[in-house]
Amino acid sequence: MHFSQVVQMVGLFTVVGEAVKVNPLPKPTSIAWGTSGARSVGHLSLKGTSSSVVVNAWKRAYRTVTTLEWVPQAIEAPIAIYYVFPTAAPAKREVSRQNGGSHSELTTVIFSISDTSVPLQQGVDESYTLIVTESSSSIAITSKTVWGALNAITTLQQLIICDSHGGLEIEQPVTIKDAPLYPYRGIMIDTGRNFLTLPKIKEQIDGMALSKLNVLHWHLDDSQSWPIQMKIYPQMTKDAYSVNEIYSQAAINDVLAYAQARGVRVIPEVDMPGHASSGWKQVDSSIVACANSWWSNDNWPLHTAVEPNPGQLEILNPKTYKVVKNVYDELSALFSDDFFHVGGDELQTGCYNFSTITTDWFAANSSRTYADLLQHWVDTAMPIFKAPNNRKLIMWEDVVIGASGVHANTVPTDIVMQSWNNGIANIKALTSMGYEVIVSSSDWLYLDCGYGGWVSNDPRYDINVNPDAATGDSNFNFGGNGGSWCAPYKTWQRIYDYDFTANLTAAEAEKVIGVTAPLWAEQVDDTVVSSKMWPRAAALAELSWSGNKDANGNKRTTELTQRIFNFREYLVANGIGAAPLAPKYCLQHPHSCDLYYDQTELSHGS
Amino acid sequence: MHFSQVVQMVGLFTVVGEAVKVNPLPKPTSIAWGTSGARSVGHLSLKGTSSSVVVNAWKRAYRTVTTLEWVPQAIEAPIAIYYVFPTAAPAKREVSRQNGGSHSELTTVIFSISDTSVPLQQGVDESYTLIVTESSSSIAITSKTVWGALNAITTLQQLIICDSHGGLEIEQPVTIKDAPLYPYRGIMIDTGRNFLTLPKIKEQIDGMALSKLNVLHWHLDDSQSWPIQMKIYPQMTKDAYSVNEIYSQAAINDVLAYAQARGVRVIPEVDMPGHASSGWKQVDSSIVACANSWWSNDNWPLHTAVEPNPGQLEILNPKTYKVVKNVYDELSALFSDDFFHVGGDELQTGCYNFSTITTDWFAANSSRTYADLLQHWVDTAMPIFKAPNNRKLIMWEDVVIGASGVHANTVPTDIVMQSWNNGIANIKALTSMGYEVIVSSSDWLYLDCGYGGWVSNDPRYDINVNPDAATGDSNFNFGGNGGSWCAPYKTWQRIYDYDFTANLTAAEAEKVIGVTAPLWAEQVDDTVVSSKMWPRAAALAELSWSGNKDANGNKRTTELTQRIFNFREYLVANGIGAAPLAPKYCLQHPHSCDLYYDQTELSHGS
Repeated sequence: MHFSQVVQMVGLFTVVGEAVKVNPLPKPTSIAWGTSGARSVGHLSLKGTSSSVVVNAWKRAYRTVTTLEWVPQAIEAPIAIYYVFPTAAPAKREVSRQNGGSHSELTTVIFSISDTSVPLQQGVDESYTLIVTESSSSIAITSKTVWGALNAITTLQQLIICDSHGGLEIEQPVTIKDAPLYPYRGIMIDTGRNFLTLPKIKEQIDGMALSKLNVLHWHLDDSQSWPIQMKIYPQMTKDAYSVNEIYSQAAINDVLAYAQARGVRVIPEVDMPGHASSGWKQVDSSIVACANSWWSNDNWPLHTAVEPNPGQLEILNPKTYKVVKNVYDELSALFSDDFFHVGGDELQTGCYNFSTITTDWFAANSSRTYADLLQHWVDTAMPIFKAPNNRKLIMWEDVVIGASGVHANTVPTDIVMQSWNNGIANIKALTSMGYEVIVSSSDWLYLDCGYGGWVSNDPRYDINVNPDAATGDSNFNFGGNGGSWCAPYKTWQRIYDYDFTANLTAAEAEKVIGVTAPLWAEQVDDTVVSSKMWPRAAALAELSWSGNKDANGNKRTTELTQRIFNFREYLVANGIGAAPLAPKYCLQHPHSCDLYYDQTELSHGS
Repeated sequence: MHFSQVVQMVGLFTVVGEAVKVNPLPKPTSIAWGTSGARSVGHLSLKGTSSSVVVNAWKRAYRTVTTLEWVPQAIEAPIAIYYVFPTAAPAKREVSRQNGGSHSELTTVIFSISDTSVPLQQGVDESYTLIVTESSSSIAITSKTVWGALNAITTLQQLIICDSHGGLEIEQPVTIKDAPLYPYRGIMIDTGRNFLTLPKIKEQIDGMALSKLNVLHWHLDDSQSWPIQMKIYPQMTKDAYSVNEIYSQAAINDVLAYAQARGVRVIPEVDMPGHASSGWKQVDSSIVACANSWWSNDNWPLHTAVEPNPGQLEILNPKTYKVVKNVYDELSALFSDDFFHVGGDELQTGCYNFSTITTDWFAANSSRTYADLLQHWVDTAMPIFKAPNNRKLIMWEDVVIGASGVHANTVPTDIVMQSWNNGIANIKALTSMGYEVIVSSSDWLYLDCGYGGWVSNDPRYDINVNPDAATGDSNFNFGGNGGSWCAPYKTWQRIYDYDFTANLTAAEAEKVIGVTAPLWAEQVDDTVVSSKMWPRAAALAELSWSGNKDANGNKRTTELTQRIFNFREYLVANGIGAAPLAPKYCLQHPHSCDLYYDQTELSHGS
């Protein structure tokens, strides 16, 4: 819907928290500001807990607050009133703001934590309340667990900003009651395609802690490389890219401790039986099929992999399971989370044309199918993965739905499915079958999309005249995907707008335990991981923490604009190399870079 | 074309320089390797010139060589022979390599430079020869100018690598005769949308020097901000984003000196009369039209700008030209290059609905058109720009072709046109009209494309079900442009494949003076400028230095693969944050990540 008189739009949009400069991300479930204005913050001491997790988190946050002396870089304000086209009208509206400093200094943060011993695991209580009153000299934080207290600290550090005299102030009085919508809020890194150094992995965890994401899904290896030190099979790291590109188990423990201290779970993935060549073939070449085949996407009937290089575990070779068990047991002891991801995506049938054991097996009984083959994997491998401590397993949805390969006949419903194809349709299909689901729908949440293709010797780029110039239709090089199968690039708005439980029954919706934004690493290493991940992952953080709708059920994407603009600057100030989203002009002139003047445009549907 | 028996493909592909590990980028015009193998490099001293430009360039290169101790990260080799689908075949072919060390050490670099006083300007001789013989202990570099000598040094530093004993060696014997195809080989930075710090600008210049690009087109300002210190009008930097985001004239001189020392020309652009609001309006608000208008792309008939924020110079206000002259004269004295870019793109007629002087002018004579209005700009402003020293002016092609706005009636043909629309069609149109052309065709060379849109309050992202799932057609969110008008992302292959003089007559082709890849900065600042620019700009560097075809006229894009993979690692090693192009597996296994096994696929057309 359009409008013809811009001036008529005044008053349609109510700014939340217009009187305050801070706009914490993710937006809390409930936040109630008073009107008395900002207040000075003195030296803040901590009381009420001796939990080392909380004490250390507070020290980090307080150091950040006192050294950054943050000045909000994008504050919310109503869109300006512009001159009416084509003649003149009143000047811009100035938003009045209140000053702080008229109240007593705040000097204490008092924590009340019900149980400081609750471990960080799926479903742990992450809620908190944070209260600053006009009369008290202390800030009151209440939570059930230390993990809730960490979330309160993260919010608090975003509330304390630099005042105009070089001191610190807090926007107050304020009452915040907050808890996440979903218990599983993740991002995925991929160290199989390209290596990431420890500092860069920690940088991702820093960003997660600031945005209240709580799961780092670590896709450890892939066909291309095996970067994890293995004591049982030291030869596996012959397939690391170099001796400098290996994670020692000490290094992994370091990452786990770093993450745990910041309320972030680390869930490892070892992708099997597809995407498996490097590492495994060093143990025993007979447990990997088609490792030396041409991937052959230039002759699709002969293809053995959807991307270079090929290699899948030999499902019918008993030796495979011995190696799988030894590798799993060692990694299972290393990674402490209750969840473990065992892959299961994109099994390519052509690979097994190179496997005599498989072709013999099919020849012996003509009723056998590739589904039966994969079923053999499920029936044999899952007990191995369950054995050590009966942990919760995650698999990619392919094992059940088979979007880009085969699927098995029967998969236990206690395995969590990570959905990446067909958006809501697959989420509905999986939840209606009884599976718990982690949403990673590629059309919304794949952060690696839109960078063109990375395979070489590709003649599709060699087009010098737009073949569809007359019709304006898009094609490979002109408006189309440019070689990126999941193009276009997912903007923060696209991510935030995703209603991934739409059309689900209540029972189905309850099966959705959370979300993860994957950043596949064919074109990612230290140089770009942070700018591809951030601040877009923060849009997902808010989507999964408090949703994308306001109290009236309308999309609040437009409201997120200034919040995420500011948060991007905050990430950069905290050492996380997040990408800029817009000209800084847009940050400094709220909503001047909106496509629609009507601030409620998103609630109209499109 | 496809093939059914992979093994049949052996021998179709001749690897150039199979015996050597180095693969300098851009590929020289002529390079002839001997077969005697690599040779040790001792302490290299310089002889034959006292030119400070050359001596300093040599010192930098030698420091790089001796401190990096570069080991090639991707070397050329024939694609592997894979097992034939579906049964087994011979193992991979091993490429034999020769060892160095059996010859005398190289100890001297002797320069012969015809004239060390020739300044760095358009058309300067950049050629060089570089010869290493088996018998001599010196490396011979011959050039007409110091700028040619700099190119030789850049090549030389890529030839000297680490030997297997921790020393240095050079791949030799070798004779290189080299000169660029085009005299103008550029990249464009945009500091109007977002600021770039001096270290990041210098990082771009470092990448340019390593890849033999020689023009930094500096789009200084835009509607969003004015970041340049002006002595005549100090108030202009009120429209810088902050006091920390201003280029002092001393800082600009520092950049100019840094660039000059590396053989890089800096050509400034002040965009006029469109894209002009910030800065100008601080001098006199009456010289800027529609600065306070809503850009109104939600109501296209009322739109005043193609992107926020609006603002165009008042073409009919005589005061405009006084300010323009003062600004131009000051910047003209600051920037020393013979070329100056005066903008001229995307004039939006709706903006002038806000200009009484313009609407009165149209009302006074109903035959007047917007073309006449723009003609007034051309007729009045060009003499101002020519006045100080009759320098060469560059404008965006819009002033002649008007792809996204109006165009003037008559534009002097001594103005160089920078072409960004419609690929070869516009290049042909402009050159046939007699203009010299710089190629910046957006469908090939815009490095900012494919990152989605940056305008907010955009309901187009809020689509939860693919509307074209049944047909597979692409749309905004599914396979389409995702909000980026010039999507898809331009990959290095897309850039390199561009035959921008195809279908031009010889006379027309001669009018093409070179190329520039723009990186518009709506979504670019320090955090991402290098990864968006590099290594893709290096593909353009080679395209404009020695072309994209081999001696037989076939596209050599596939041959560039390992060269650009290695060069990307070299850029990173030299401190330029270039993005990774593929899994490191691809670097380590030449051509394993090709789409087609047939290494001549690109020469077949597609």
